[in-house]
Amino acid sequence: MSAVRFSRIAVVGLGLLGGSVARGVRAHLPAAVTLGFDADPAVRARAREISLADEVPETIDEAVAGADLVVLCVPVGAMEAAGRAIAPHLAAGVVVTDVGSSKASVARALADALPGVCVIPSHPVAGTEQSGPDAGFAALFKGRWCIVTPPADVDEAQTARVLAFWEALGARVEVMDAEHHDRVLAVTSHLPHLIAYTIVGTASDLEEVTQSEVIKYSAGGFRDFTRIAASDPTMWRDVFLSNREAVLEMLQRFSEDLTELQKAIRKGDGGMLFDTFSRTRAIRRSIIEMGQDDARPDFGRSHSD
Amino acid sequence: MSAVRFSRIAVVGLGLLGGSVARGVRAHLPAAVTLGFDADPAVRARAREISLADEVPETIDEAVAGADLVVLCVPVGAMEAAGRAIAPHLAAGVVVTDVGSSKASVARALADALPGVCVIPSHPVAGTEQSGPDAGFAALFKGRWCIVTPPADVDEAQTARVLAFWEALGARVEVMDAEHHDRVLAVTSHLPHLIAYTIVGTASDLEEVTQSEVIKYSAGGFRDFTRIAASDPTMWRDVFLSNREAVLEMLQRFSEDLTELQKAIRKGDGGMLFDTFSRTRAIRRSIIEMGQDDARPDFGRSHSD
Repeated sequence: MSAVRFSRIAVVGLGLLGGSVARGVRAHLPAAVTLGFDADPAVRARAREISLADEVPETIDEAVAGADLVVLCVPVGAMEAAGRAIAPHLAAGVVVTDVGSSKASVARALADALPGVCVIPSHPVAGTEQSGPDAGFAALFKGRWCIVTPPADVDEAQTARVLAFWEALGARVEVMDAEHHDRVLAVTSHLPHLIAYTIVGTASDLEEVTQSEVIKYSAGGFRDFTRIAASDPTMWRDVFLSNREAVLEMLQRFSEDLTELQKAIRKGDGGMLFDTFSRTRAIRRSIIEMGQDDARPDFGRSHSD
Repeated sequence: MSAVRFSRIAVVGLGLLGGSVARGVRAHLPAAVTLGFDADPAVRARAREISLADEVPETIDEAVAGADLVVLCVPVGAMEAAGRAIAPHLAAGVVVTDVGSSKASVARALADALPGVCVIPSHPVAGTEQSGPDAGFAALFKGRWCIVTPPADVDEAQTARVLAFWEALGARVEVMDAEHHDRVLAVTSHLPHLIAYTIVGTASDLEEVTQSEVIKYSAGGFRDFTRIAASDPTMWRDVFLSNREAVLEMLQRFSEDLTELQKAIRKGDGGMLFDTFSRTRAIRRSIIEMGQDDARPDFGRSHSD
């Protein structure tokens, strides 16, 4: 990990991702000084209590002053404001990255807010449904992919430093352009979240099936969607607003495919249903082979409690 | 468990559910003789190898002859044929139940196939994405709900015996009418499966995002859907064909709700998105409190491998 030549790392935003970055740095890059900041005083107080970072100053100026790496871990809709807040206090030679789930809009926002600063956006594809300063853990990134989307004109040596940083936290890294990232994530992450939020909402609104029935019988499939639909609402609102075009396009395709299945059910076309349901198993197998999910049945849920 | 006065229990169909019923009986009702049968000779051979039941005869006649309980564990589309196959060989006083995921159509099919026989349909709301004779385990039903849908004219003492049977296997039981069952399950199980199958199909068909990218970045949410979409295709084809009306109605409501969110994204209505995403967290909390899911973040997936 000698390639990581960052010695003072500021983490702005101390939720699930920021907390995990801070813990990851402390665990894997103990020589670096970590500074944590959150706009919410209660989160700062909690971060100090649990020693999330070496220092948790009261102001963002103090947090980023002298830092050679700043990791912005705020919702994507707050990136531009965070960029403007840190801009006057950045040291020369600093690299700014982030963990936002959409990249083209974040790249534009940070380029506007931080003219002349080396900005190399990142997206570690990792998370849980939990949020807040207590939710993070150092191993969150282990074995997960982190997509880095350097602007065309950026110094390659700086990109290499950012890649080495994520590798030090246990991630596997990939370089991609921001627009392609946004299309890939629209289908692998944003659309699944949108659909999960929708179906959980649909189930809550039924008159003839009670909420308590929905909860009781959730083990038939519904409960898996509720995990995703328990994710942070602010973060996800911002993702959909910032990656609007790609999400709407994927949603359009999904709706067309759903209409086809709806027609097959209406017509009683068992052959079409069987064929569709058969070809989806291979993808599951590949995801497990690639180490991106748990191979144990039912996610290894305990059946003995 | 003295209320379970079944002494010879035949399990027809030795997949995930049938295998779990057979193992559950052997574990929790050791005094009963278990007979297993599957239409597939390879499954019968495997069932004998792993001692899934006390006896695995070559014919369905031998399997059900003398049984006082028959549990049909075949796909719902095969229930009527299974009923007709066992009809001539049933002992007087036998109770027939099943594990099908839709109940009104199964009740009709079994009433047609088994005139004069005591049929009390059941649906244990439990399962994993695995299938086949090796997939089952005795604890599958533990703490899960089993919905029993007795016909109006059935002897209540017989219903009590069926309820006690499922309780002996560890399930919590609930009595419901078949039509209401089908609406509840349409939203808590059938619609989630349909949507999961759809989105996994949509992702596979994209031209500009490769299959390998979908797999690599699946940890952003998509992987949870692939688990459900790896479920048995025959079983699910039959569920959608047999519970068509309720599924189509729930699908219609889901589509309307999805269109509302689509409009909010298009118009940039962050307030509507935030409100929708906020009210879904409470349901997750209730599901965990009710013991129907794992409280650990990310389903307790290992982050250290």
